[in-house]
Amino acid sequence: MKIQIKPIGYVARIDPQEDERDRSLVAKIVLEEALAPALDGIEEWSHIYVIFWLDRVDRTDPPVLHHKTGNGIFAARSPIHPNPIGLTLVEVLKRERHTLWIKGIDAYDGTPVLDLKPYPDWHGNLQVVTEFRIPAWLDEIIHGSVSGRVSNETTNN
Amino acid sequence: MKIQIKPIGYVARIDPQEDERDRSLVAKIVLEEALAPALDGIEEWSHIYVIFWLDRVDRTDPPVLHHKTGNGIFAARSPIHPNPIGLTLVEVLKRERHTLWIKGIDAYDGTPVLDLKPYPDWHGNLQVVTEFRIPAWLDEIIHGSVSGRVSNETTNN
Repeated sequence: MKIQIKPIGYVARIDPQEDERDRSLVAKIVLEEALAPALDGIEEWSHIYVIFWLDRVDRTDPPVLHHKTGNGIFAARSPIHPNPIGLTLVEVLKRERHTLWIKGIDAYDGTPVLDLKPYPDWHGNLQVVTEFRIPAWLDEIIHGSVSGRVSNETTNN
Repeated sequence: MKIQIKPIGYVARIDPQEDERDRSLVAKIVLEEALAPALDGIEEWSHIYVIFWLDRVDRTDPPVLHHKTGNGIFAARSPIHPNPIGLTLVEVLKRERHTLWIKGIDAYDGTPVLDLKPYPDWHGNLQVVTEFRIPAWLDEIIHGSVSGRVSNETTNN
């Protein structure tokens, strides 16, 4: 089974040379003009998920299965995975027709955008997960972070 | 530009007749056998994002732009959007070779899965957003929920 996806727009960096990993930077998502009405009401959300396509990642066959940490690539956040889809939660700053100003996207200038989704999800209640478990290796990287490792209970606020 | 994606596996419901919107239900993600090693270490996470393809959604041309609430489709969580990609945060229960038992997926039996990502994301710190703003219309639906509407500040725990 093959799925065909057409991007809805792309990421436009203010300065194409800036460090795309700096999540304090403002960038734009420029949608196809015809999709502008699909942004109506988006400024009522402070945060959205951006789902994008890492078009500069080489896809190998067979795909890379292990991350350099020794973890499976689905247990890490490497850009190298069978379908190089990016998922980042960003702040919504301003919308102007088919352009959305956001803060926090870790994507290069020109990166194709596949979808936008409001945060948080809801089903009855808002789904904000504040209690969770992370691997020891990540805890060591972050060092000193003790929050959120108590249980794997989902908290609905 | 057209992007070709090959699913990494599919959602398998325990009972194909059950209500897929019931997030208390356990289901499986069955990956392609060759991808089994890519799950190594995933049980160290209590929660992961599942990115899937809503293959039963009809894509129209031109696409639907407004949700029945009057919002743009990017400002709501309708399954009907230009690229019918699903994004759900689920609990990880158990992994066995290329099969992952999870709780909380709102997808039909057989739904193609595109990617899995650990929760939460991190960049320096873990990205757990507990302060956010939601639209008044959603607040009314949830009625009585007052949490998380104070500011649009991102909290890093």
